[in-house]
Amino acid sequence: MVKRVIALLTDFGVEEHYNGVMKGVILKINRNALILDLVASAKSFSIMDAAFQLWASYKYFPYETIFLVVVDPGVGTDRQPLVIKTKNYFFVGPDNGVLYPAAYEDGIESVVKITSEKVILKNRNGTFDGRDVFAPAAAYLSKGMPIEALGQYTEIKEKYVFPEPIINKYSIKATVLHVDKFGDVVLNLKKEHINDTSKKFIIKDKNVQIKATFAECVGLCMVFGSSGFYELALNQGSASDLLKIKTGDEIEIEIV
Amino acid sequence: MVKRVIALLTDFGVEEHYNGVMKGVILKINRNALILDLVASAKSFSIMDAAFQLWASYKYFPYETIFLVVVDPGVGTDRQPLVIKTKNYFFVGPDNGVLYPAAYEDGIESVVKITSEKVILKNRNGTFDGRDVFAPAAAYLSKGMPIEALGQYTEIKEKYVFPEPIINKYSIKATVLHVDKFGDVVLNLKKEHINDTSKKFIIKDKNVQIKATFAECVGLCMVFGSSGFYELALNQGSASDLLKIKTGDEIEIEIV
Amino acid sequence: MVKRVIALLTDFGVEEHYNGVMKGVILKINRNALILDLVASAKSFSIMDAAFQLWASYKYFPYETIFLVVVDPGVGTDRQPLVIKTKNYFFVGPDNGVLYPAAYEDGIESVVKITSEKVILKNRNGTFDGRDVFAPAAAYLSKGMPIEALGQYTEIKEKYVFPEPIINKYSIKATVLHVDKFGDVVLNLKKEHINDTSKKFIIKDKNVQIKATFAECVGLCMVFGSSGFYELALNQGSASDLLKIKTGDEIEIEIV
Repeated sequence: MVKRVIALLTDFGVEEHYNGVMKGVILKINRNALILDLVASAKSFSIMDAAFQLWASYKYFPYETIFLVVVDPGVGTDRQPLVIKTKNYFFVGPDNGVLYPAAYEDGIESVVKITSEKVILKNRNGTFDGRDVFAPAAAYLSKGMPIEALGQYTEIKEKYVFPEPIINKYSIKATVLHVDKFGDVVLNLKKEHINDTSKKFIIKDKNVQIKATFAECVGLCMVFGSSGFYELALNQGSASDLLKIKTGDEIEIEIV
Repeated sequence: MVKRVIALLTDFGVEEHYNGVMKGVILKINRNALILDLVASAKSFSIMDAAFQLWASYKYFPYETIFLVVVDPGVGTDRQPLVIKTKNYFFVGPDNGVLYPAAYEDGIESVVKITSEKVILKNRNGTFDGRDVFAPAAAYLSKGMPIEALGQYTEIKEKYVFPEPIINKYSIKATVLHVDKFGDVVLNLKKEHINDTSKKFIIKDKNVQIKATFAECVGLCMVFGSSGFYELALNQGSASDLLKIKTGDEIEIEIV
Repeated sequence: MVKRVIALLTDFGVEEHYNGVMKGVILKINRNALILDLVASAKSFSIMDAAFQLWASYKYFPYETIFLVVVDPGVGTDRQPLVIKTKNYFFVGPDNGVLYPAAYEDGIESVVKITSEKVILKNRNGTFDGRDVFAPAAAYLSKGMPIEALGQYTEIKEKYVFPEPIINKYSIKATVLHVDKFGDVVLNLKKEHINDTSKKFIIKDKNVQIKATFAECVGLCMVFGSSGFYELALNQGSASDLLKIKTGDEIEIEIV
């Protein structure tokens, strides 16, 4: 029997029992589940941050991994609890956009709204669907339950896409998709957006050059990062602190 | 053979090797142990916080899960290292109250002070019983060792109970049991303490209404939380920051 | 077949997908890998901190554990990606000193630079060797691949050793190896460096006595810690905050 991996991505944090309780719920249903933390402490309530981190990660996981994503500020409202089956994976989480960029890229095959009373925990509280709805859904999937047994077919409502940069000859308007622990600033700029890597840039009065590695940066620089987007970085320092920018911010980049 | 889950709850934090070393010790004794983090970074030294989080979580875990709880400011003193067998679970940790609310609720069957020289690591240091005493005890339990082989029967000394609220017609004096990562404030108020959920309240000059979900909150509100206690919350904001309150604080709630 | 444990020690943090992605890469190569976090969020870029935490931990793990250590500010430069086989363990990580104190103490048997194209991921990015080089190397080792199949034999370049204290009759010059979550300050002082534990000390105008446990400390004290080094501590307070010292600092200790 295939042993499906369950990878957790939540904004619950390591100070809390919320992630741990979800693992307890899973193991109560499937004692043989292989559970791991993908992100234990994503930015609170940020759809963009979670969607980015999931998209940057999913393709490195084994076939049929179940991504259990709980960044869910709308818990208790009528946003749909979803399971999405894609070409290679399963995505479980709220219909608020967090799952969409990864699921769309991999190729969506079917979408189910979790409604089965056999799956949802009795005494569902309405403030913690991670525990009461999403964890049991992931657990039953990991045991091989077919997706359609979890509820009823539905359509995805929140088809979130990352913002596109606005590029002209002398400037770029970019958006910050993610700021990591080191203060590296992931921009929505791909290889195709910068056709001349010898160009220099000015961001908030600071000169920026493109370098191949963090260790080569002298002052602020731009590095083609591991996720497939360019990142603003300082060598062993925080570009985010220096520029005072955070996830979701728009920044003006002057091309010189 | 039943594979018993070991769930760790500590205040050691993810910056440290302490949780990792405990897992190493366990795997050295039982390579097949199934270990997971329940809480990796509970509030430092707080018996109330750890006791609350354990109590809110334990019932969601599989039968015979071993809860390994190391929030232990009295390490090295004569506080007893305990294993408690309850109706459905095992609890391993110091006799300082952290284990008691959960163990008591599940039904205590027997209590042993860990003294076996076969269990305790040689060169016990006296500052890290998580590694030297509690982790090996949990590991041997996970292999099926009977509880009485870990030491000698004893009585629990610290029978910690959560404080009770003081309620009269016009006001409630409540205690903060826990503040979570989002700033939600868990109070020691259960369903039975609030018989009219249409009532309005004033806390520190702020109006508070009861809502069913976080997303419905307009300004400060009170939500019946996932643990079974009421929580003060802001929609996508920190009630704890707004009210400047923290775990253990007492607050006056005016009923209007 | 022996199931080798993979223990991760990184400075990536729990807010990020970096540790999770490494686990995905490992499981894609070896679905039966037993992966655990030793340290998920070590001090950013600090060789000393990571080397200390690895050294303090490794001996508690089962035979043939693979330590996957990614604290790697020089990623993308010509620092070597290493696998070190020691008497009892495997160490995987950059040749920047982080692996050396632990590997040296256990007894180094052979050292390989990871160069195999079968091991390194296609499309290696140059900014995330944890994912592209070290995780796959650890995964193949966990499946039993012999170390020499990962690349070519080499010599370790960065033979990092912890600084030695300077001790005379009236004073000690010590270095801070690590500050833990509680603010306990690990110094490079072993049992052999302090031959009279009834002596009193002055650090930054504060009196310090040696105590056996944290709970016995009255004001600032020094405790023989779990790693085998003395630690400055406050009972349920932060010695690091009180003294305003951090990892890597040198401090003067007056003997009185």
